[in-house]
Amino acid sequence: MRVLGVDPGLTRCGIAVVDGGTGRTVRCVAVDVVRTPPDADLASRLLAVADAVEDWLERHQPDVVAVERVFSQYNVRTAMGTAQAGGVVALAAARRGLPVAFHTPSEVKAAVTGSGRADKAQVTTMVTRLLGLDSAPRPADAADALALGICHLWRAPMRARLAEAEARAAELTRRHRARLAEAGRRAAGKGTTP
Amino acid sequence: MRVLGVDPGLTRCGIAVVDGGTGRTVRCVAVDVVRTPPDADLASRLLAVADAVEDWLERHQPDVVAVERVFSQYNVRTAMGTAQAGGVVALAAARRGLPVAFHTPSEVKAAVTGSGRADKAQVTTMVTRLLGLDSAPRPADAADALALGICHLWRAPMRARLAEAEARAAELTRRHRARLAEAGRRAAGKGTTP
Repeated sequence: MRVLGVDPGLTRCGIAVVDGGTGRTVRCVAVDVVRTPPDADLASRLLAVADAVEDWLERHQPDVVAVERVFSQYNVRTAMGTAQAGGVVALAAARRGLPVAFHTPSEVKAAVTGSGRADKAQVTTMVTRLLGLDSAPRPADAADALALGICHLWRAPMRARLAEAEARAAELTRRHRARLAEAGRRAAGKGTTP
Repeated sequence: MRVLGVDPGLTRCGIAVVDGGTGRTVRCVAVDVVRTPPDADLASRLLAVADAVEDWLERHQPDVVAVERVFSQYNVRTAMGTAQAGGVVALAAARRGLPVAFHTPSEVKAAVTGSGRADKAQVTTMVTRLLGLDSAPRPADAADALALGICHLWRAPMRARLAEAEARAAELTRRHRARLAEAGRRAAGKGTTP
């Protein structure tokens, strides 16, 4: 499976393609940081991010797009810009019919370091090690995009198993209810009408 | 001037086209609310909003797109969805080379009611009156999108005058500095070198 991981942002947007191999092996296909000028207007910055993502989707043909989910940040203005950038990334994927998965920063950190509270340096160290890179990806946004890709590859099978278990449970519940309803109907048929 | 006003949202996205006439007259061309199912995944909801906006841009050919700027809300999750919807709206406008303006809720309220703290009922009442509508636009998101259009039409000339005044001030400052520099050079030329 090939994942396009995006750490959305307007000033710096981390973007990476990671391939999953057998077991837990992962491979870095490409990584970069898209930058847009802070003094440009918001709409043209979003357009630059959207164009870059579409170019990567076209060039690398991923199977899925993983985006970092932003809940809140110290700076509300920055958080809104980040959310908007994430929105145009998800839109680009949806336009191509690709599934989009959102992972929280703590899920990403936990996936690559084992701790949801790991710092940026730990994430960068583990990403470098897991992907067998010669040097640490810089800036942190690039490492985050790679971590997101790895997180998705490792979480996806777990998610699929979970979804399968939920579907099975729902099917059992449905059958149980159907049997109950059938028993109720039979009982009513046998009973006396007042 | 024709404005497409959008009150972004995923569950309900208000969308309206307002024409500005001579003086302060305004006319409602179209208004609607785009809804996306809350149980659908985020990417497909954003796609539905983007498709609707693109359809409106194509059908109504506005000169500018005005979007409500979201800073924060009680519910951070909702605020993020709103920001993402606003992002895809801005992107659709930018793709067509249309200017995008963001107005805060208090700017919109102040424009149509005179008070930045007006409630939803006041905004709806004033929008109905200003546009000479037979009945109040429902739900509130539809009224908000119309209010946004009116706000933009009325604020745009003020903004343009402000930008002009700022440009004039910058030019005067530049000339003044140039004269000072010239005077400095002349004084240096006349002075004695130690």
